[in-house]
This record gives sequence, C-alpha cells and structure tokens, in this order.
Amino acid sequence: MQWYLVAGLLTLLTSSQGILTTLSQNNRGYNYDYATVPFLAEVFKLVVSSFLLWGENWGSQPPKMTTDWKSVRLFPIPSIIYLIHNNVQFATLTYVDTSTYQIMGNLKIVTTGILFRIFLKRKLSNLQWLAIMLLAVGTTTSQVKGCGESSCDTLFSAPIQGYMLGILSACLSALAGVYTEFLMKKNNDSLYWQNVQLYTFGAIFNMMRLLLDDIHSGFEKGPWWQRLLNGYTITTWMVVLNLGTTGLLVSWLMKYADNIVKVYATSMAMLLTMVLSVFLFDFKPTLQLLLGIIICGMSLHMYFAPVNMLVELPLTSKTVPGTLNEVAVEKLEGS
Amino acid sequence: MQWYLVAGLLTLLTSSQGILTTLSQNNRGYNYDYATVPFLAEVFKLVVSSFLLWGENWGSQPPKMTTDWKSVRLFPIPSIIYLIHNNVQFATLTYVDTSTYQIMGNLKIVTTGILFRIFLKRKLSNLQWLAIMLLAVGTTTSQVKGCGESSCDTLFSAPIQGYMLGILSACLSALAGVYTEFLMKKNNDSLYWQNVQLYTFGAIFNMMRLLLDDIHSGFEKGPWWQRLLNGYTITTWMVVLNLGTTGLLVSWLMKYADNIVKVYATSMAMLLTMVLSVFLFDFKPTLQLLLGIIICGMSLHMYFAPVNMLVELPLTSKTVPGTLNEVAVEKLEGS
Repeated sequence: MQWYLVAGLLTLLTSSQGILTTLSQNNRGYNYDYATVPFLAEVFKLVVSSFLLWGENWGSQPPKMTTDWKSVRLFPIPSIIYLIHNNVQFATLTYVDTSTYQIMGNLKIVTTGILFRIFLKRKLSNLQWLAIMLLAVGTTTSQVKGCGESSCDTLFSAPIQGYMLGILSACLSALAGVYTEFLMKKNNDSLYWQNVQLYTFGAIFNMMRLLLDDIHSGFEKGPWWQRLLNGYTITTWMVVLNLGTTGLLVSWLMKYADNIVKVYATSMAMLLTMVLSVFLFDFKPTLQLLLGIIICGMSLHMYFAPVNMLVELPLTSKTVPGTLNEVAVEKLEGS
Repeated sequence: MQWYLVAGLLTLLTSSQGILTTLSQNNRGYNYDYATVPFLAEVFKLVVSSFLLWGENWGSQPPKMTTDWKSVRLFPIPSIIYLIHNNVQFATLTYVDTSTYQIMGNLKIVTTGILFRIFLKRKLSNLQWLAIMLLAVGTTTSQVKGCGESSCDTLFSAPIQGYMLGILSACLSALAGVYTEFLMKKNNDSLYWQNVQLYTFGAIFNMMRLLLDDIHSGFEKGPWWQRLLNGYTITTWMVVLNLGTTGLLVSWLMKYADNIVKVYATSMAMLLTMVLSVFLFDFKPTLQLLLGIIICGMSLHMYFAPVNMLVELPLTSKTVPGTLNEVAVEKLEGS
C-alpha cells in the first residue's frame, strides 16, 4: 500500500472523528463517560492486531517477533509519555484558556520536526523546514479568532507559566510520536506484533487512568467497569471504531512512512473538519480559514513535491527581446 | 548601489509615509487638500531628475537620451493607467467597504507576478510563484479583522461586481508597474531622462485631476492653484518629500531591479507600518499580524535565498545507526 493513500485515509478518518464526537453529544454534553472511549479504542486495536498477527502465522513465512524483555520493556514508554502529557495539558489549562491552548497546540508541528531531526537523525532541507513552519503557521491562521467572537484576549496576556507549559506539552506530544516511530522502525519485527505490545500497554494505562479517575471522585458513579457502556449509542461506537482505526493507520505510517507525514495528515484533517463544520453545523466560513487552507496547501506542495519541480525554471523557446513587448505596447496604445 | 539597499530604503520610506500621513492629520481630518500632495511630489521628482540629468551633462560622457516622438509618447501611458485605476477604485468602493477593498488590494501582488511573466517574459520557478502567492497570503493574514472590531462582514458578502472590479483594479495596478519596468528597461537611456519624461506627464495628469475635481465641485473652494499650499505644515511637506523620494527609488528599482523587488519592499513596508503603529498609535498587536510577519518573512527567504541553500540536505558525518538513538532511549528510561 502507498503511504499517501494511508495518509489520505487517516486525514478523512481523523476529520470524521471530530464530526462524530460532536454528533455523539446531545445538547447537555456527553451521555456517556468520554474517558471510556480511548480505552475501548485500545482494546479494539489490540483485538484487530492480535487477529492479524495470528493470520500472519498461517502465511508462507511466520512473522518476525522479538520477545526479549529488553525490547518489550520499551513499548510502555509511549503510554507513559502520553500520561505525563495529559497531566501537563491539565496544568497548562489552569493558566491559559482553551482557545489559547488550541493555538499553542500547533507548536507540536514544529517540535515534531525538531525531535525528528534530533532523535531520528533525519535530515531535512531548508525548504522542508520552511514547509513545516508554514504548516504550523497555516493551522494557527485558520484558528485566529474572528470578529464577533465573544471572548477577546490580547496576545500573550496569559501568565508566562502557561506558555512554558504549552511548549512542554508540544514537546511531549512530539516526543511520543518520534519515540513510537523509533520503536516501529528499530527492527523489522512484524507490525502486528509491535502493535500488540503497544496496545497491550495502551489498554493497561487507560484502564489505570479510569481507575484513578474513580478514586479521585470517590467511586461516586461506581467503578468504571460497571458503567463502561452506559449511554453508548451507535454514534458512540462509531467514535470508538474510528479512533481505533486511526490509531492503526498511525502505527502503519510510523513504520512505513514517518512522523512528518502523520503531522500533515492530522493538520489537513483539522482544516477539513472546519470546512465540514461550515456545512454540517452552520459554522460561518472565515477569511482566516480560507487563508489557513491556502497556506497549508502550499506547505504540503513544498514539502512533498520533487525538488526539481520546485526550483527549475520553465523551459521556453528563446524569446526575441522587445518584439512581444512591442505588441503589448501597441495594444495598450490602441485601447 | 546594490538593489537590496534601495529596496530597504524604499521599505523604510514607504512605511514612514503611512505614519507621516497619519501625523499630518488632526482629529478632524486633513487641514490641507490631500489631492495636492501627489501633484507636488511629481513636481519634486521632476525637479530632482532634471537637476541630476543636467549634472550628467557635465560628466565624462553625456547621458543617452532618445527624444524621438515614438519613444516619448509611451511615457504618459503609466499616468493614463493610474487615472483609469483611480476611477475603477472609486467604482469598486461603491460596492465594497474599505476593509474589503484593502484585503482585495493584496491581489495585486499576484497579478504583478502574472503580468511580469506575460509581458516581460520573465521566468519564475515554481518555488518563486509559491513565494509570491505566500506574500499575498501573508499581507492578507495581517489584515484579518480581529475579535472586538466593530464592523463584522461575512466572507464574500459584497455584490459580485465589487469583486470583479477589485480584480480589475489589481490588474491595472500591476499593469502600471510592469509597463513602467518595460519603459525603463527598453533601452539604455539615462534613468534621469526617462524620469523627466515620466514625471512631466505625471505632473500634467495630476494637474488635470486637480482641475477636474474643481470643475466637479463647481470651483466652490476656488481654483486649485490658489489653495495649493493652504494648511500645509512642516509634516505635510515631509509627506510630499517622502512620497517624491519613494517615487524616485521605485524608478531606480524598475530600471536596475524589477517589479517583484518593489512588491516585496511595499509589502514589508505595510507590515512595518502596522508594527510601528503598535508603538506610536497604541494599536493592539494581534496574532494575525504576528502570523503575517512570519509568513512574509518566509516568502522573502523563499524568493531571494539561493536555490542551493534551500534544497540541499545538510551534510553531516556518517551516523552510526542505532547508537545515538539507544542513548536517547536509555535516558528516557532513566527518567
């Protein structure tokens, strides 16, 4: 399978994720416990990957699996990073409002590029760096608050701690992605075996999170396993399946493509969600959304187009200086 | 003189033009007739150019001057285009508000690129086209209306005629620039002789415009020459000198550099004016201004940086695969 097909599919599914999540709410918010969704998605990914791994066993050559503890012990690390990230995110939101947090979230595009360069030793041209920064600028542009929006903050009005935590959050998010890419590429183990390890720990950590939430709330709503599927509708299940599928696609990209491809897919998905919201939820299309789409489109072209295509001057037959200009002048004078 | 020094000076002076014009107003508007400013600026440019041409006569070799009517008759054309442009501008403003007009004005960056390609047969790489479009997107981004601004228009809410006229206006503005470049470069006549021709017609057309304004208003404020310097202060004179000097710099760029350099200089000047307004007139700095500056800076780098610098991958010593990643992993595990 071609990486750009997977990236395209990831864009569509990530975009539907936002739409489905909105559709799964009623006007009073969620009818179900949203924290159960990522847990069930991990379980879904684990089941699918186990099944595919089992299928590989019946193929012409059995899947390559490193079961050495030295290798397995690396697989909970992404979950640990996400756990820390969640807590930093929570701390950040005590200093800045959600829209500022959302704007700062675009920083992770740039931090992913930086960590990709540092940890994975991947070289990027000056132009590719420009493209990555442009992608971050483009997604930020699309989120600029328009006129008529209720709250109106001055630039950099939050306390400095908020911005520092926002940067830390962007670094952790990038680190999780880059580390996962390292894990998937460090040997040629079967993708499904790597997934099984990743999602087993993912499911465990999500379970722990649900339990901790219960402990914090003093089990007032009962233990999580008793209310796991409470309020689930068909849309909620679609949210779960969608989240699980996007996770599987991201794993595939981490092994056969890279973090930058993932970052492009998710950024484009964000813009697509905003465009779809215009049609589905009567959002007002804004100039900044249009500009953001143009900027990100240019960034995509700059990053992925062949270098020759970008820098070569078009070949034309030798021009006869003056002649055609004179024609233009004659026309002008005649008008 | 290097073209980028001239372009830098043009940026500074164009930017001061906005500031000086604001400073020359009092709180009830202009104390003087603003239409007299461009006329006096033309006269200033004509006087300076005549003087410099006269000076060239005393040099080691006399200036090259084509005085053939077939050549001279081309020099009023830029003034004619500007005259048409002014009328189209006026018509456009009956359909759209000034802020929409200002946003559409950024189109002239792209139309200049297109006419530059068509009429002057100048080849641009794919990357340079991207840079030009990005410059237009960047200046537009900086002008996105922020939250809290009074009037709040929906995207594309004006009648279609307004947008068509806006496009026409952008084409005419670009045509005037491209045509002037053609005039300045079509032979190696002395720049000052070309200027003298250009500004003689410029002064005449501006005079005609003042006269037409008087006729339209039925001479109720008296003929223009009687109230030419009414209400002029030292600041007004600085506006005139500034406008005249920027005009001379633009002429120089048209002969020794090109329209794209001019477009970059004036776009950067617009951003600089906005930044200076934050300090001078207590304008609120906005996220969109910051984004616009970043985008235009990237565009500048993309357009003017040497191609090799942009596309080459950094050279590093051969990396030992795994080793450094392993170190990173060890560190992660230790944390």
